[in-house]
Amino acid sequence: MDEVAGQPILAIDLGGTQIRAALVMPDLIVRCRRAVATDDEEGVEAVIGRICALARDVLTDAAAGQFPGPVGIGISSPGPLDPWRGVVIAPPNLAGWHEVRLAKRVETAMGLPTFLERDANVAMMAEWRHGVARGAENAVYVTVSTGIGGGVIANGRPLIGADGSAGEVGHLTVELDGPLCGDGMPGHAEAIGSGTAIAREGRALLERGASAGLAKLTANPEDVDAAMVARAADAGDPACAAVLSRAWDAIGAMCAGLVNVLNPEVIVLGGSIALQRPDLRQAVRAGIDRRAFPAPAQRVRVELAEHGEDVSLIGLLPIVNERLNDPAYRKESA
Amino acid sequence: MDEVAGQPILAIDLGGTQIRAALVMPDLIVRCRRAVATDDEEGVEAVIGRICALARDVLTDAAAGQFPGPVGIGISSPGPLDPWRGVVIAPPNLAGWHEVRLAKRVETAMGLPTFLERDANVAMMAEWRHGVARGAENAVYVTVSTGIGGGVIANGRPLIGADGSAGEVGHLTVELDGPLCGDGMPGHAEAIGSGTAIAREGRALLERGASAGLAKLTANPEDVDAAMVARAADAGDPACAAVLSRAWDAIGAMCAGLVNVLNPEVIVLGGSIALQRPDLRQAVRAGIDRRAFPAPAQRVRVELAEHGEDVSLIGLLPIVNERLNDPAYRKESA
Repeated sequence: MDEVAGQPILAIDLGGTQIRAALVMPDLIVRCRRAVATDDEEGVEAVIGRICALARDVLTDAAAGQFPGPVGIGISSPGPLDPWRGVVIAPPNLAGWHEVRLAKRVETAMGLPTFLERDANVAMMAEWRHGVARGAENAVYVTVSTGIGGGVIANGRPLIGADGSAGEVGHLTVELDGPLCGDGMPGHAEAIGSGTAIAREGRALLERGASAGLAKLTANPEDVDAAMVARAADAGDPACAAVLSRAWDAIGAMCAGLVNVLNPEVIVLGGSIALQRPDLRQAVRAGIDRRAFPAPAQRVRVELAEHGEDVSLIGLLPIVNERLNDPAYRKESA
Repeated sequence: MDEVAGQPILAIDLGGTQIRAALVMPDLIVRCRRAVATDDEEGVEAVIGRICALARDVLTDAAAGQFPGPVGIGISSPGPLDPWRGVVIAPPNLAGWHEVRLAKRVETAMGLPTFLERDANVAMMAEWRHGVARGAENAVYVTVSTGIGGGVIANGRPLIGADGSAGEVGHLTVELDGPLCGDGMPGHAEAIGSGTAIAREGRALLERGASAGLAKLTANPEDVDAAMVARAADAGDPACAAVLSRAWDAIGAMCAGLVNVLNPEVIVLGGSIALQRPDLRQAVRAGIDRRAFPAPAQRVRVELAEHGEDVSLIGLLPIVNERLNDPAYRKESA
């Protein structure tokens, strides 16, 4: 059990698919969980309304359960965002969001100090303060799911960068002329290793009749997702196995580069794909051993996120508690 | 003019080709320069002997010139090395060097406290404390010459990493199945963008009769170096121009990845190739604009090292002055 710090907080995880909210207690227990579909196609105002309604439901549940009230609200959101002003800038997977002062909006509606951080940085905080990266001076969190994101601990502190956008490890180039990622840039690790990329390659296989394994699972290319490609690979389809192998190699190469540049004590793998596919962790280990210098390669541990899918709630506990009295995070009025 | 800090030091730059030594004054003036060939094929003891002889010559010159004596010695060396114990571990371009306690050996011979740091970290310190990266919280120094090295400032401090080996930016993978670098790892930026890589590609062109431009300059593939490939490219040889273009693209992609992960305020380009080829700086700028996220790409400045080839001497001034009283750098007896 970790040492415990701070006061209870209300944690909100704004994702492209779902909004989750809960009370996170100082002993890291997550209580009064609630979730709702994001439905971002209904527009920014509708989503902010759903966030606040969900937060109110959690507060109601907390009062009913006689849990102590939260001292503040933390919101985990896709980036890019400005953590100091609490502004969501323009995440590719939140349609129509552009320079939204989310923290201030929620703060005003809920009457509680509210702070915003990029999802992968929140996850990094969970694992660095209360998980497998505890105590590390230098560490990297890598999340592999629809996309590939990350967060970095450098010189004993979270690395925020000049604009608050450090940690985009999935956007290291691993193929100079490789496929385009969602942002239109060529050869990033995300464009080969992410769930989106695996699904794209699977669809292409099905369309040109190159995977009997996928054809057994569906006739419609639109149905193909990363999980289906993995299922076909596990069932022995060589084309799907090659797609996964290439994806894991891209992620391994990306991690090896991070080892050579950052010389971290630990790389933490999170996100739905990493948590569901133990072979990815092995591939990352192999990629580091093949592509990184011997001393830092031997030093670095490769671990799965201890808090699993709860990283984006638990990581908000230290973030809110620390920023409550930090003038750098004082928001101008909305 | 920068603010001035510290006491004069004796700076030694141990390179694969040359050993340089000089007095570095608190106003950054480099005095009493001396240089000698490294001749590492003569063995470790011979090289250490030459280092100490050169240091004594500088001290003699300093006394003759009535300059104040140095308070300590700094040595810039190729990595990997252990800066705390002052041990050179096993640099690829210092033949036969393996776990050499260089700092302690020089300290004992010269009677002055002696500190060791990796060459690219020394250069980074020069530019961060007294050059174009002055005041940056997050910065990257990239040196492009025989190899590609680097140093990182993260969260307002030099990034050393768990083993003192952080900053090896040239060993980011930019091609999953690319050519091998000197350490036998595939597809690193160094294996495409370094002087060694450019020369290798030029030799291959000449051997298969694919570059009329190179054939005009020499008949012997062994004569081909990066400068000759650049000369042929400048004279209009398309094959050599393509080699350079690919090299610059690899370096641009590497820098774009660093922008996405570290979100630095400035990238400083040093090393003989970067200093001699202004088109490399333009290519790095273009690579960042093409391959990095818009906000950090717009933010980052791309600059040439202000101190040119003297970075590896001047950077030792703050290093020695700061480590004189730092117990982390107290060496055990040799």
